[in-house]
Amino acid sequence: MYIGLDIGGTKMLGGAFEKNKLLRTLKIKTPTATTAQEITQHILTLIKDLAKDSPIDGVGIGIPGSIDRATGSIGFSPNLPFKNFALKAVLAETLKCPIAIDNDVNVGLLGEHWAGAAKPYKNVVGLFVGTGIGGAIILNGQLYHGKHQIAGEVGHMKLKFDGPLCNCGEKGCLEALASKTGIQKMLEPLGYKFEGVVKSSWIKDQFDKDNKDVKAAMKRATLALGEGIGSLANLLDPEAFVLGGGLIEALGESWLKRIKDQVKLRALVDPVIKTSALGDHALLYGAVRLVQTALP
Amino acid sequence: MYIGLDIGGTKMLGGAFEKNKLLRTLKIKTPTATTAQEITQHILTLIKDLAKDSPIDGVGIGIPGSIDRATGSIGFSPNLPFKNFALKAVLAETLKCPIAIDNDVNVGLLGEHWAGAAKPYKNVVGLFVGTGIGGAIILNGQLYHGKHQIAGEVGHMKLKFDGPLCNCGEKGCLEALASKTGIQKMLEPLGYKFEGVVKSSWIKDQFDKDNKDVKAAMKRATLALGEGIGSLANLLDPEAFVLGGGLIEALGESWLKRIKDQVKLRALVDPVIKTSALGDHALLYGAVRLVQTALP
Repeated sequence: MYIGLDIGGTKMLGGAFEKNKLLRTLKIKTPTATTAQEITQHILTLIKDLAKDSPIDGVGIGIPGSIDRATGSIGFSPNLPFKNFALKAVLAETLKCPIAIDNDVNVGLLGEHWAGAAKPYKNVVGLFVGTGIGGAIILNGQLYHGKHQIAGEVGHMKLKFDGPLCNCGEKGCLEALASKTGIQKMLEPLGYKFEGVVKSSWIKDQFDKDNKDVKAAMKRATLALGEGIGSLANLLDPEAFVLGGGLIEALGESWLKRIKDQVKLRALVDPVIKTSALGDHALLYGAVRLVQTALP
Repeated sequence: MYIGLDIGGTKMLGGAFEKNKLLRTLKIKTPTATTAQEITQHILTLIKDLAKDSPIDGVGIGIPGSIDRATGSIGFSPNLPFKNFALKAVLAETLKCPIAIDNDVNVGLLGEHWAGAAKPYKNVVGLFVGTGIGGAIILNGQLYHGKHQIAGEVGHMKLKFDGPLCNCGEKGCLEALASKTGIQKMLEPLGYKFEGVVKSSWIKDQFDKDNKDVKAAMKRATLALGEGIGSLANLLDPEAFVLGGGLIEALGESWLKRIKDQVKLRALVDPVIKTSALGDHALLYGAVRLVQTALP
């Protein structure tokens, strides 16, 4: 039995697999104001509850932040208390089975490649539009990480020299123009107030109600995604793009069509663009694939 | 003996190699107002003059334009009379030896990777700044072509939504901001007149003489290259960038330093950036490498 885990700042989702078949899932709320050791205990409990009494052949994990793939150590992870924490070593000592860990965005695209929308393609770029914009690249059927493991940072492609300020400190990044955070920052000066990050469902609802401010923000986001994906198509000429994340899922096929229309204007060759097929389960599949392919 | 050829609209340069050693070169002016068949005869004469009476083990060719690598057919080539012309088949019939053809920018980076500045690296991005801006990508030690053979089109990354018009019909492409053509188009409305495309040596000369208009155009080009390479670093996280082409060669290390300073402000991780080491011979080395690695 293989266990795939999606560890995030708000929830921890796990799946138990027999080969490539998802048998059952479990979800818990991520405890806040806690330590790395306590989170690790919750992860171990989740794994044991998923496995029941079956022997565990491997555990794969997708987690946001910076991961040293060689050691399985987590440099830092936003909204989680891990800081230079050797999660892989700690889990392996208790579980005595192979463990593999990678960035959540990479793991999500790997899942779509193994069992979802990216299955037929050797070269794929994934873009995940939510609070930020994450990206991942599969080349020749393999995740491409780059020299410093940062490859796929599509959110920080610069589209406008003098565009809005991004969280990275630069101006005019794709993320500042087209993520939920970027949309929120465009609405706040107009008097809109939000608790935390604006919800995708609220954006969808206001868009459908013809809220002019939301429509203007979405128009900018659509244009920016068209520019960004157009540039990526010219640069990497992948067989397909897979788009996912909360905002893509909420806005659905009609938004995808508008994005495609913008890409068509800009790409030298019109690329295949699809939405993710596995939704919340993409990371579970990807995590299991990760540990299966890491096995000797 | 291997023959490497750099076929362009103004000159045809050839080199004769024993294994990886360049023995001699020959250069002729490309005849104008002629046919594909006549150009092919000139190419055959150039090959025979280079080989003298040695047996030819293979011929590699770098040529601008769109090439079907599978068939060695040239879709079109700017300033050359090839149009859907089966150059590989025609040459192979006469020479009875392996022939390999690829885009000039790809072949140039391949040469730098085999014998020049990119030699130590597995993942490299090449940018060639001249009349236009060409790009090429080596991943895992191999040229990466993409689905439609257009991968590496760095010149058409969009940096400014409302930037100057590019030859591709879009606005704000890297090429429109930082190529010789882009610089020329910025100078012409100020009263500067040029015959054909502005020369790199003129730009260098005026820059050194503190011509304010040229300095402003170069500042924009530096900024655009900094943005473009910064985005590429975040996206592909290669081990190194290799910059070449007429403008890079003319402006030299002091320009490279200013470009590097801009990249450092933008890239999440500061990448290695080098200038090409082989100059005009990069394509000869790359063409020979191309046919050697294509051999069964």
